[in-house]
Amino acid sequence: MIQVVKADGIQEKKLLGQLKNRSEEVDRRVTAAVTEIIDAVKAKGDEAVRDYTIRFDGKCPTRFEIPKEDIQRALDEADSDFVGSLRRAKENIEDFHRRQKHQSFIDAKSNGVMMGQRIRGLHRVGLYVPGGTAAYPSSVLMNAIPAKVAEVEEIVMITPPLKSGGANPDILVAAAIAGVDRVFLAGGAQAVAALAYGTESIPRVDKIVGPGNIYVATAKRLLYGTVDIDMVAGPSEILIMADENAPAPFVAADLMSQAEHDVLASAILLTTSEKLAQETVAELERQSAALSRREIIAQSLRDFGAIIVCRDVEEMIAYANDIAPEHLEVMMTNPLEYLGKLDNAGSVFLGNYSPEPLGDYFAGPNHVLPTSGTARFFSPLSVDSFVKKSSFIYYTEDVLCDAKDDIVRIAEREGLTAHANSIKVRF
Amino acid sequence: MIQVVKADGIQEKKLLGQLKNRSEEVDRRVTAAVTEIIDAVKAKGDEAVRDYTIRFDGKCPTRFEIPKEDIQRALDEADSDFVGSLRRAKENIEDFHRRQKHQSFIDAKSNGVMMGQRIRGLHRVGLYVPGGTAAYPSSVLMNAIPAKVAEVEEIVMITPPLKSGGANPDILVAAAIAGVDRVFLAGGAQAVAALAYGTESIPRVDKIVGPGNIYVATAKRLLYGTVDIDMVAGPSEILIMADENAPAPFVAADLMSQAEHDVLASAILLTTSEKLAQETVAELERQSAALSRREIIAQSLRDFGAIIVCRDVEEMIAYANDIAPEHLEVMMTNPLEYLGKLDNAGSVFLGNYSPEPLGDYFAGPNHVLPTSGTARFFSPLSVDSFVKKSSFIYYTEDVLCDAKDDIVRIAEREGLTAHANSIKVRF
Repeated sequence: MIQVVKADGIQEKKLLGQLKNRSEEVDRRVTAAVTEIIDAVKAKGDEAVRDYTIRFDGKCPTRFEIPKEDIQRALDEADSDFVGSLRRAKENIEDFHRRQKHQSFIDAKSNGVMMGQRIRGLHRVGLYVPGGTAAYPSSVLMNAIPAKVAEVEEIVMITPPLKSGGANPDILVAAAIAGVDRVFLAGGAQAVAALAYGTESIPRVDKIVGPGNIYVATAKRLLYGTVDIDMVAGPSEILIMADENAPAPFVAADLMSQAEHDVLASAILLTTSEKLAQETVAELERQSAALSRREIIAQSLRDFGAIIVCRDVEEMIAYANDIAPEHLEVMMTNPLEYLGKLDNAGSVFLGNYSPEPLGDYFAGPNHVLPTSGTARFFSPLSVDSFVKKSSFIYYTEDVLCDAKDDIVRIAEREGLTAHANSIKVRF
Repeated sequence: MIQVVKADGIQEKKLLGQLKNRSEEVDRRVTAAVTEIIDAVKAKGDEAVRDYTIRFDGKCPTRFEIPKEDIQRALDEADSDFVGSLRRAKENIEDFHRRQKHQSFIDAKSNGVMMGQRIRGLHRVGLYVPGGTAAYPSSVLMNAIPAKVAEVEEIVMITPPLKSGGANPDILVAAAIAGVDRVFLAGGAQAVAALAYGTESIPRVDKIVGPGNIYVATAKRLLYGTVDIDMVAGPSEILIMADENAPAPFVAADLMSQAEHDVLASAILLTTSEKLAQETVAELERQSAALSRREIIAQSLRDFGAIIVCRDVEEMIAYANDIAPEHLEVMMTNPLEYLGKLDNAGSVFLGNYSPEPLGDYFAGPNHVLPTSGTARFFSPLSVDSFVKKSSFIYYTEDVLCDAKDDIVRIAEREGLTAHANSIKVRF
């Protein structure tokens, strides 16, 4: 079900190369179809959204917006244990994200000059939530709560209508708990375009976040600049570093918790212990038999999974930094010691009792993380993702006079004489 | 040279609509040409960069990298006044950007749980600097200094070779002052692709920043995700809010300081004073006669400039927030009072002695700012642009045990049984 490779500098390089390329395909037909949808929604608004909804989702609801009472009713009717779990998760997520919040600053100098940077929440944010089996309430919490903490004035959720006409009730429950302000029924590229441009019924937003299929992702990519978007997300990944003291049942379970997401998901174990490698293989076989998504797990472990037996810990660290995984579990003796050495990872899970699903659902840090090696330069979704910054400058006549020769000199050297003139005209 | 419009809700709306559309054109031929270049550089490395350099720049230097001695020599031989001005600008820019720096945080709870967010400078950043008349030393300072403050380990500059074979000496001087580590000679889409993938001679970077022509901008856009990029930049803009006390010569000079950049640049005055509007028209005529770039100024003022006479200050503020300009000058009585009310702007220049070129060259805040109304959601280039964040979680067995029912419940509700299994297997 999974290949075990001894690190020899050749085999595992090939394997890691395959891994990085798995999300690079760009489908020109998808781009053409999505471009057409975007153009239609821009030109015709609601009418176009309605036409595409009928074409792709079977029928279109009479009104796009779900009334507030229906959202409240979903919350009132929900299983109270489930609501309790989501509420406790929300508290932890909110608590962690509050710590990310930055203040505006001002530097008010004694010579009268003032400069600074103002930080303010975006005005309106759109949260896309997929329909069907990929409608995850945890994803609603993880996307909406940091926006709320950033003081975004209005959070608008959009999700494809179910066959029955409404929305998935679990999604509505999560929306109510997270503080989503309005919910609309539309899906796919037409929903993304509606949020980017605004229609008669659906308000224009400043940023669109949330997962989606290839049509949603392509629409976001094409509309980047007209609207801000969250990162370009690829298939999910886990990398586990484990030494001979790590329990194989834990290692195997955690590899599969990522592998079950998608046949393109990747789960890799780096270990110095040949014994752990063999025990993990056995545990994968044993535990997977009882799991509902065992076929997806088997395929993703076969195609994009691996156990790499490394010569030493330094080699493990070097691979981890090269792979730059979305999720990085460190099941090593004294796990905290590794935090500084691991340069690239979306989220680092330290120790035997910090499995990745703890982070997906409950601990507090965001579960929207950079994938496909982009942790080299992208960061987890955070409060910073939902703010805009502006700088400001206030100079006095005297201080500008002191600076005028420097400014005029650089401007003229660059051949920008109107820039120089704007200083000279004042003196 | 510039149209004067009375705000009546129709004329100026049309005008602002034109403004927003001026950078939306996507050229399919450019995309096709750039895609070919990117594929070639990815496949053939140096050889492809060399071929394209010969084709587009006439000839290719023997080696791409400029030796450190040549950079030092450019600094030693430069005009000392110019070097002094750049050094003073650098001090101010560095001082301002130091205030933007954020710390990693840890939340170490009394129950043994630890969580936090680590912030670290990117490993290597590429700075593209255009050749010819658009080779601006100020741009080198504004892009390199925040990277340096963010503790980026290596800053690599790349710039097209001059006809003479070398690089613009002013650019090398700015690179030396700003602390750029290595400089390479290549330009266009081939230079961007080389930085994104790495070649035998040119190192792969994590993020590419800096201005460039349509080929450079398209290459950055297409490679976004393989590498991080700075924002999608459009033509430059200034919006001035001025009341009857603002001096018309200052207003006119500042409008032209933006208009000289480019025939697509936009310069707009919002005023409550018809008298100021008329005086500004006269000053534009008078002052522009002496400016070297008067033809560009005349064309950009004609096509994308306007003076809008507003009924009251509230109307001015509403337009300013709708336009979301790159540069916003507030030449109003008590200018500081407006800072809170102005929601969308890259940089705000308050008072009669804070002209936009002060910010371009000297004061300290960054001059790389969101254009074309994207200040609604994008922010100025900053230290934050050059860091990556990772979250981390350390849970203990006891605390995970307390949380296990909540995690399992949400995981199972989402149908992700391998997620639930990863918790259950531990207890």
